[in-house]
Amino acid sequence: MRVCSKIWLDNDGKAFGEGPYQLVKRVERTNSLHEAAHQLNMSYSKAWKLVQQIEKRLGFAFLDRKVGGLSGGGSYVTNEGKEFLKRYERFESDAKKIIEKTYQKHFGSLSKK
Amino acid sequence: MRVCSKIWLDNDGKAFGEGPYQLVKRVERTNSLHEAAHQLNMSYSKAWKLVQQIEKRLGFAFLDRKVGGLSGGGSYVTNEGKEFLKRYERFESDAKKIIEKTYQKHFGSLSKK
Repeated sequence: MRVCSKIWLDNDGKAFGEGPYQLVKRVERTNSLHEAAHQLNMSYSKAWKLVQQIEKRLGFAFLDRKVGGLSGGGSYVTNEGKEFLKRYERFESDAKKIIEKTYQKHFGSLSKK
Repeated sequence: MRVCSKIWLDNDGKAFGEGPYQLVKRVERTNSLHEAAHQLNMSYSKAWKLVQQIEKRLGFAFLDRKVGGLSGGGSYVTNEGKEFLKRYERFESDAKKIIEKTYQKHFGSLSKK
């Protein structure tokens, strides 16, 4: 037996969780919302709506879009977005560890079954 | 902003979580799987299948069914089931508290936004 969990942040609706994290993290790596959506088999319009929703519920701009130009444009995670990602990663990692520990405390003796 | 979570136990599939807890807790109170299912707007057949699945994945009998007789029969939570419910309640309460604490540690400064 093992423990499973889903954790997310809410602000009058889902604000940030595993799905948004996977999307924005890929934008950070690729500097492209198109590419990030593609990697997750998500349509661009769905990814775009998700980003709009995250930004609205968290209250800051996560992505900075450069349109066209010689470099071809792209989407860049803002400094505030990068800080938030780091904070979320630390939180998520801590939470997973502590849930496992709490599970072991209460069910450790049963988990070999 | 606030943190939300779902936690469940898995053993080759969902073994126990909030839904099963609500069902079995009502059987403990009412001594009737019919009544417990009714209170949760769940069909009896769905409730019955859920109990079968819980018992299979946890590896012990959760309910003891008495059929007919002068007392009219009913479903009773076994001693092992009662012990498990208590364990789960302590685990769930601990986990919720510790997730909130972890959230405050990482996002406390942002949560007034």
